[in-house]
Amino acid sequence: MTLGPSLVLGIDPGTAVTGYGVVRRDGRTTSLVECGVIRTAARDALPARLREVHEGVVELIERHRPDAVAVEGAFYARNVRTTLVLGHARGVILLAAAQAGLVIHELPPAEIKKAITGTGAATKEQVQFMVAKLLRLRAAPEPADAADGVAAALAVCLAPALTAARATAPLSPSASRPR
Amino acid sequence: MTLGPSLVLGIDPGTAVTGYGVVRRDGRTTSLVECGVIRTAARDALPARLREVHEGVVELIERHRPDAVAVEGAFYARNVRTTLVLGHARGVILLAAAQAGLVIHELPPAEIKKAITGTGAATKEQVQFMVAKLLRLRAAPEPADAADGVAAALAVCLAPALTAARATAPLSPSASRPR
Repeated sequence: MTLGPSLVLGIDPGTAVTGYGVVRRDGRTTSLVECGVIRTAARDALPARLREVHEGVVELIERHRPDAVAVEGAFYARNVRTTLVLGHARGVILLAAAQAGLVIHELPPAEIKKAITGTGAATKEQVQFMVAKLLRLRAAPEPADAADGVAAALAVCLAPALTAARATAPLSPSASRPR
Repeated sequence: MTLGPSLVLGIDPGTAVTGYGVVRRDGRTTSLVECGVIRTAARDALPARLREVHEGVVELIERHRPDAVAVEGAFYARNVRTTLVLGHARGVILLAAAQAGLVIHELPPAEIKKAITGTGAATKEQVQFMVAKLLRLRAAPEPADAADGVAAALAVCLAPALTAARATAPLSPSASRPR
């Protein structure tokens, strides 16, 4: 059995609410380190909100120093405008991970479900039930966006082989970062 | 007549090729300072390419210190995957401008055409003809992506009233930037 990285930051991107979870793996045991959301103000313009999301992810990476980042990926909203705006948020999140030189796993929702429940067709309730069980929590993390971030991180801890194909090669940290 | 900002960086976003142009306005005269493209390697993963685009824009802002940034905006590709990937590139470009605390103009292609030629239905050739004429160049800038970046910058210099509604309030530079 291939074991995954030992500390993973999982992220569920959004411009309004970005959920995240940090999961630690010790051998075959997984545990939740922290989860929450990065909220941005609806009154702010898109560039300001993107800056808040980027700074939030940079802060999480600096504080936890994860081995890998898992980003819920390639979700196509029904509305094309929603898809474009979601792309903006994912862009600055992938950037923060690339700037830190981390391995990045981009995981479609079905792969996250499969890694956690055994089936890509699992319901949200099944995923939440298994997330709570695998992390020995009384209930699934809240709010739902935070739970989705935790699920992404957990998927990489549990099934590195499943997701390895989507991982990008680690980059060297940025030589010239914005000052 | 309202005069626009005196130095504008215009950007035509893309993950493979991002075009840019820097245009200066002195009274009613406009001139081209620099134009070109930021190219990323197709063999690199998306996060690495986004980092290259972000670093390229950060470098341009630091070198030219523009008053405003004009980003060709809200273009919806026919292919939803293309739209999502384009959103990633726009995200890191808007982030770079927000981190520098600059006024940002997001301009739909039709508004750029209207500001330069008088009609939003102008052909690519009409736009290139007028860009060359207004900047006193022998021919339109090349490659086409660079010309599109120049057109975005020129539109803001020529028609600040037209585009001001889309400008976001200037932000204070980031308090905590990525180290």
